[in-house]
Amino acid sequence: MASLITMDDLTNEEIIEVLDNAERLLPVARGETYLPLLEGKILGNLFFEPSTRTRMSFETAMKRLGGEVVNLGDVKTSSVVKGETLFDMIQMVDGYTDIIAMRHPRQGAAQYASDSARVPILNGGDGAGHHPTQTMLDLFTIRQAHGTLEGLNVALVGDLRFGRTVHSLSHALVRFGCTLTFVSPESLSMPDEIISDLKRHGADITETADLSSVIPSADVIYMTRIQKERFPDEDEYARVAGIFKLCAADLSPAKGGMIVMHPLPRVSEISPDVDNTKHARYFEQAFNGVVARMSLLCRLLNVEVPAIISSNGGEN
Amino acid sequence: MASLITMDDLTNEEIIEVLDNAERLLPVARGETYLPLLEGKILGNLFFEPSTRTRMSFETAMKRLGGEVVNLGDVKTSSVVKGETLFDMIQMVDGYTDIIAMRHPRQGAAQYASDSARVPILNGGDGAGHHPTQTMLDLFTIRQAHGTLEGLNVALVGDLRFGRTVHSLSHALVRFGCTLTFVSPESLSMPDEIISDLKRHGADITETADLSSVIPSADVIYMTRIQKERFPDEDEYARVAGIFKLCAADLSPAKGGMIVMHPLPRVSEISPDVDNTKHARYFEQAFNGVVARMSLLCRLLNVEVPAIISSNGGEN
Amino acid sequence: MASLITMDDLTNEEIIEVLDNAERLLPVARGETYLPLLEGKILGNLFFEPSTRTRMSFETAMKRLGGEVVNLGDVKTSSVVKGETLFDMIQMVDGYTDIIAMRHPRQGAAQYASDSARVPILNGGDGAGHHPTQTMLDLFTIRQAHGTLEGLNVALVGDLRFGRTVHSLSHALVRFGCTLTFVSPESLSMPDEIISDLKRHGADITETADLSSVIPSADVIYMTRIQKERFPDEDEYARVAGIFKLCAADLSPAKGGMIVMHPLPRVSEISPDVDNTKHARYFEQAFNGVVARMSLLCRLLNVEVPAIISSNGGEN
Repeated sequence: MASLITMDDLTNEEIIEVLDNAERLLPVARGETYLPLLEGKILGNLFFEPSTRTRMSFETAMKRLGGEVVNLGDVKTSSVVKGETLFDMIQMVDGYTDIIAMRHPRQGAAQYASDSARVPILNGGDGAGHHPTQTMLDLFTIRQAHGTLEGLNVALVGDLRFGRTVHSLSHALVRFGCTLTFVSPESLSMPDEIISDLKRHGADITETADLSSVIPSADVIYMTRIQKERFPDEDEYARVAGIFKLCAADLSPAKGGMIVMHPLPRVSEISPDVDNTKHARYFEQAFNGVVARMSLLCRLLNVEVPAIISSNGGEN
Repeated sequence: MASLITMDDLTNEEIIEVLDNAERLLPVARGETYLPLLEGKILGNLFFEPSTRTRMSFETAMKRLGGEVVNLGDVKTSSVVKGETLFDMIQMVDGYTDIIAMRHPRQGAAQYASDSARVPILNGGDGAGHHPTQTMLDLFTIRQAHGTLEGLNVALVGDLRFGRTVHSLSHALVRFGCTLTFVSPESLSMPDEIISDLKRHGADITETADLSSVIPSADVIYMTRIQKERFPDEDEYARVAGIFKLCAADLSPAKGGMIVMHPLPRVSEISPDVDNTKHARYFEQAFNGVVARMSLLCRLLNVEVPAIISSNGGEN
Repeated sequence: MASLITMDDLTNEEIIEVLDNAERLLPVARGETYLPLLEGKILGNLFFEPSTRTRMSFETAMKRLGGEVVNLGDVKTSSVVKGETLFDMIQMVDGYTDIIAMRHPRQGAAQYASDSARVPILNGGDGAGHHPTQTMLDLFTIRQAHGTLEGLNVALVGDLRFGRTVHSLSHALVRFGCTLTFVSPESLSMPDEIISDLKRHGADITETADLSSVIPSADVIYMTRIQKERFPDEDEYARVAGIFKLCAADLSPAKGGMIVMHPLPRVSEISPDVDNTKHARYFEQAFNGVVARMSLLCRLLNVEVPAIISSNGGEN
């Protein structure tokens, strides 16, 4: 059984398969039907860094499918503080579980865990590294809106320097032939090595600091939070905080089908008045974390998702 | 599907219906039989303030009925500290769950959440506001002892100023024609606006600072903890702390059927020697939190409680 | 229904019975089959002190058997800080659960809880007192390797003064006629009263500070962590920290069947190069916590473990 550490662990065909299964699981995620495909299975939730959305949606995904969850709990009171290594922790937890979802502040930690674990690891974010389950739910949301992943114009906005979410997503979108526009202040621009790498894979990339200029042509505007905790200097943060604010009025030149996304939590990047426009998709996007993770849990646990799931009769 | 924010969300007939269903569910709450009425359902436990009893009894209620629970966890490490609003948090969690139990330090927070949520909200306490599930378990305990809610003499003792529990309960008891006696030191007396409001609803109310005088005539003595954290001044707390202490000997003039209640945790208001008297009901009261919440969860999730549940054969 | 507070609560025959059932449950613990023997049952996890391994393995044990768990959560935000006594807490939680697993910093706390609880208590460690579920998983691991508990040479190494794990285990091993060697620095030697007591029960005991001398004859080498938090003085800790370090090369004179155990977490007592030798059993030992606890949960809940459990067809 394989792990999911980066998006490179999935071919384009496998990505489409995971998204197709996620779509079939929508009635289960919505609670319209109960389908205990993972009954008797246990997910170990190892969050070495706090996470509200990712942890809760993994739990929901598992429980909607009849599985169970065992949480590491607060890392500050765990055996980590007694000096236990990640290696030893993983040897323990993989004896207690069938699959592990893990977030860790250190880049590479998920791969390291996967190298010694007997159960599959789902990387739930490893520092500045990867966050493939987030990318899968982002792709699901985009495909749901546009019916395809291919050839879209996607603008990624805000903190492109530190955000692993936009790095992983950019790579995936390029694999499906999307055109990317990176919108950020100079100090938060997409790292050069990532741009070079994307271009090697044939990416069509534009960089700008002007958000309004990208609105008319975008199929997707992907906003991100500028994370105060990344700035050593308060003044530097103050200079860029709030530089991009999307409000409903800004969206009038947008295409009718354009969607606004955000990995959440948002602070002030998206005005509440956008919530009621036809463009807002960030809350559906958060909900889609459940189906995307359900589909991935089934895949890594080698459990087949039925081809047809009716919304009020269970498996057909 | 409606939420339960205050006791005003239920008519007297509906209260009785919820209590009747709670009574039917007693063998399930005691673990004598397993009745997975809520299989496949997920409760989101959003406790923005810590709570041991309310949170654990909600969890137990859900799990005794075959449902599942997803916890927000420690709010200090949640996305709230990254600046996420309650509105955004609710949009997320109602995509992950079928119903939400919520405690929040701010009065009105549960109503605010309910206004934007797609799933029902069970108010588990909103600051100085309401705590209707506590009131329901209190009413259940009183009815269980006296066979009725009507026309009882109920003495409420201790901190009547800050305690949302006694505020909610007083309103409910007046709706069933109970006579109330408020026993408190001057500085912790029932707020005037609440007394006025109760009287507008026809309440028969007496105020006193003398606990011993109310013991002979009471059907219920409802003790409360004087909460140190409410006093800005240590001296003022010292003056009233321990002012009311009930011990077994004090209860000799009481009616045989009189019951002593307490929302717990107690500190020194009730001496341990009361525990073994026939009057003590506070531990059953805590247990009754499970059946009361089971019944409310079923109601808000539109799941019918069977009319007869045998204690060793499941649904009849 | 009885509690399990110390190993004295079980006769030798009962210990063997629990180990036999644990062995039958191995396919369930490994997730090869699902056997919901404890469906509808709720375990209350009351950890007044943090514990990663014990808490998580109790949770896994319960969930592998179809049961549910309700956690007290962080004791620092629980009603304990409002002044609630252990007695009152237990009266509450035993109304919410069918069985309680409890860890508490105070010796005797589990017995105290058991005296007033209506449900069985599983002592998960009470200060310097007992830790019987750890002893059961240790015995399971030893019997699994050697086919018997009788007449083995067991060396216990490291902190023998403060470690409740080695105290409980020593008593149990003496009951099965094992020969014990205590290996520790003077300042961490096995307390005199425990040695006297073991000898009264017929123990054959040797004490030494030389680990290498015991390797050739040992059937089991049980390493322990020297716990920094036990030393008031940093210098004294520095003198003994790292005094015993086992590496693969040290094991060349060992018998082929000798096993190295450790309750984990380890710090530097066992070099990682031991992990790949045939002697290493500490990770299996951690896993065995699940089957040992499953067997004990069934016993205390009066649920019979089927005589034959196939690894891919449930109960036979």
